[in-house]
Amino acid sequence: MSLDPETLQAARQQARDMLVCAGVTMTDQEFHALDIADFALGDWTQTGLIELVYVNTKRCCAKELVLFSGQTCPEHRHPPVAGEPGKEETFRCRTGSVHLHVEGHAEIVLRPGEQFTIMPDTLHWFQAGADGAIVTEFSTRSRDELDVFTDPQIVR
Amino acid sequence: MSLDPETLQAARQQARDMLVCAGVTMTDQEFHALDIADFALGDWTQTGLIELVYVNTKRCCAKELVLFSGQTCPEHRHPPVAGEPGKEETFRCRTGSVHLHVEGHAEIVLRPGEQFTIMPDTLHWFQAGADGAIVTEFSTRSRDELDVFTDPQIVR
Repeated sequence: MSLDPETLQAARQQARDMLVCAGVTMTDQEFHALDIADFALGDWTQTGLIELVYVNTKRCCAKELVLFSGQTCPEHRHPPVAGEPGKEETFRCRTGSVHLHVEGHAEIVLRPGEQFTIMPDTLHWFQAGADGAIVTEFSTRSRDELDVFTDPQIVR
Repeated sequence: MSLDPETLQAARQQARDMLVCAGVTMTDQEFHALDIADFALGDWTQTGLIELVYVNTKRCCAKELVLFSGQTCPEHRHPPVAGEPGKEETFRCRTGSVHLHVEGHAEIVLRPGEQFTIMPDTLHWFQAGADGAIVTEFSTRSRDELDVFTDPQIVR
């Protein structure tokens, strides 16, 4: 994480404002635990993602993903782990819009109330529209540290 | 399902209004597919539940549960199935309040932004507070038809 403390704090507060607008109430503990990822690219306005993790057990996981205007989560896949298929994830757009690029599919644009399920081990990346996006992710267990990114410079 | 068409239609519309208030956008298809359960008890104002099912695959499931003022989802558990542990579910309150009764725990009251995870095969029941409740459920695969209810009169 290469973000300076001021940028981090501003990002956290902007994410909270967007979550409140989406009707998401979070605890103070959750606010302070927001996961802010710049993927070690040092290009936060272009490439970044904020996660509010609701639950992540051995069997299932749920998060809110917050993307600011035009921000991208770079291409990656979720490989099989320990004899299990990789992570399966369903993205449901809550506010704004998100452009989803999934291996084997034409571009998918999700607007509020629309969703798409990404199968395990499938390359995908996504970018928020001009108004940013709140996207709920319903999935199997999340192991962000095992995600395989196409860009070798990326550290998660 | 013993509800008459008028009651069903009113329930559907009230659920939609509550979901909109909670910031949940749903498609027309989802509105028409809302799952309305009276558990065959014929006592809808006391015992009932409406579900908006977002996704239910072999591996994970997510739903919004809608309960009207004081409505109860009766005691049940999710037994092991086909060599897998039963359903694991996390309830997160979005609006209103819900009183959760879980085997081995004192009563748990969830208000917006609060959540609790129920382990597999654990008896539980829940009741909305005076303002009703919207509760998001994040879980492993849902097989409502295999739930084991304590009251033998119940049909799901």
